[in-house]
Amino acid sequence: MKKPLILVTNDDGITAKGIKALVEVAKKLGEVIVVAPDSPQSGMGHAITIHDPLRLKKVDIFEGVDAYECSGTPVDCVKLGKYVVLKNRTPDLCVSGINHGSNVAINILYSGTMSAAMEASLEGVDSIGFSLLDFNADADFEPAKVWVEKLMRSVLENGLKGGKLLNVNIPKLPLEEIKGMKVCYQSDSRWVEEFQENTDPMGNKYYWITGSFVTNDLTDESDVRALESGYISIVPSMHDLTDYQAARDSKWMEE
Amino acid sequence: MKKPLILVTNDDGITAKGIKALVEVAKKLGEVIVVAPDSPQSGMGHAITIHDPLRLKKVDIFEGVDAYECSGTPVDCVKLGKYVVLKNRTPDLCVSGINHGSNVAINILYSGTMSAAMEASLEGVDSIGFSLLDFNADADFEPAKVWVEKLMRSVLENGLKGGKLLNVNIPKLPLEEIKGMKVCYQSDSRWVEEFQENTDPMGNKYYWITGSFVTNDLTDESDVRALESGYISIVPSMHDLTDYQAARDSKWMEE
Repeated sequence: MKKPLILVTNDDGITAKGIKALVEVAKKLGEVIVVAPDSPQSGMGHAITIHDPLRLKKVDIFEGVDAYECSGTPVDCVKLGKYVVLKNRTPDLCVSGINHGSNVAINILYSGTMSAAMEASLEGVDSIGFSLLDFNADADFEPAKVWVEKLMRSVLENGLKGGKLLNVNIPKLPLEEIKGMKVCYQSDSRWVEEFQENTDPMGNKYYWITGSFVTNDLTDESDVRALESGYISIVPSMHDLTDYQAARDSKWMEE
Repeated sequence: MKKPLILVTNDDGITAKGIKALVEVAKKLGEVIVVAPDSPQSGMGHAITIHDPLRLKKVDIFEGVDAYECSGTPVDCVKLGKYVVLKNRTPDLCVSGINHGSNVAINILYSGTMSAAMEASLEGVDSIGFSLLDFNADADFEPAKVWVEKLMRSVLENGLKGGKLLNVNIPKLPLEEIKGMKVCYQSDSRWVEEFQENTDPMGNKYYWITGSFVTNDLTDESDVRALESGYISIVPSMHDLTDYQAARDSKWMEE
């Protein structure tokens, strides 16, 4: 059987520990091509680079794997991966991550990791974004790798019937304490922002974004709750943002 | 009756003609605060600025309106608007645009205009993103303004029952040829990319993203079709990206 072609990307940058872990798993399962940002791109969401040219450079980082670093966003990486690096070959699977930190709930909107996977899914490629609930640059990805492999194998064998995209978050737990995988929905939630205000040497104010994540949505089927209970959360996700219920109601159309 | 508070932003930058048109309409309907990017931010999607500090500067651009330009993304503008500029006042409505160019179909994912409106909707604010199907910097916004005012009045009076966010696209037509507004769903579509390859003076390659928009989804209820038929398309949109159908099927969980 022909080896599956797996496109790997992330948003923490090509030298992050998380993508190394993901490449190690992917190498066991297929032919791997890496196209990932040359610098951290967390919080870039679905941004693409319109006003600047993009750079692509072959790098020798992962043993036995063709890898390219890209000056753009995670979504740019997928577009360049598909159209420039792979030319007309379509990957069998795109995996993004393993992100250093959570992408549960509404964080899918801000996440470069998930937007990269979303972009590949728009191209008809089965795609998975993986995140570990540990922001540490030196996080331990070994327990995560076991489950990442299990899920990737399953998706390569069975395909993502119906959907095209999974948002997978993995709790920061030792392997023996991870209870399994659970299919969830995206928790409703929000960020309560606080801005740190400072003054530069010229006397001008500037702001750093900070904030705390708030969810009250703790039913058993929510991704936040699954993780709190020691499960890996899997949210099948999609690019259709239509609010069909609101469209049916559309009271605001009446005058 | 107290005047409603209206937060105005965009992604083409605070000096764009489209935001001027939107401010002119908003001023008739309430108290207006503008927080918009100091430079073009098209294609920024839901990006936020994590690795750099943000600047905010009061500017005197719109007569009788408090306006601030921000060094960040459209989503940063909404966050800074809410937490720094407005402090604890919650806007009654957030409007974003009027974008120079279409944001139909999957373009909602890439659009800074729509992500800004989405961000305000996450904060519980009724939000509308407006786009005119004309990329021209000097586009004629006069016909659009008539309909923008009509819709804003209606939403301020009735509220967005159920939903919180509208994606509104306006055809490039003379006023008398616009047939009305139509509630639609987001067309399924994709971009077929092409990258222009060039070589810089140092002999290094670089790439510009280009591409063509493709949709085969032309049922009467799709936003693309409504616009082609001379209607303004209104897609009620939301931040829950869960693919509930795929979650129910989830065949890929079986081994």
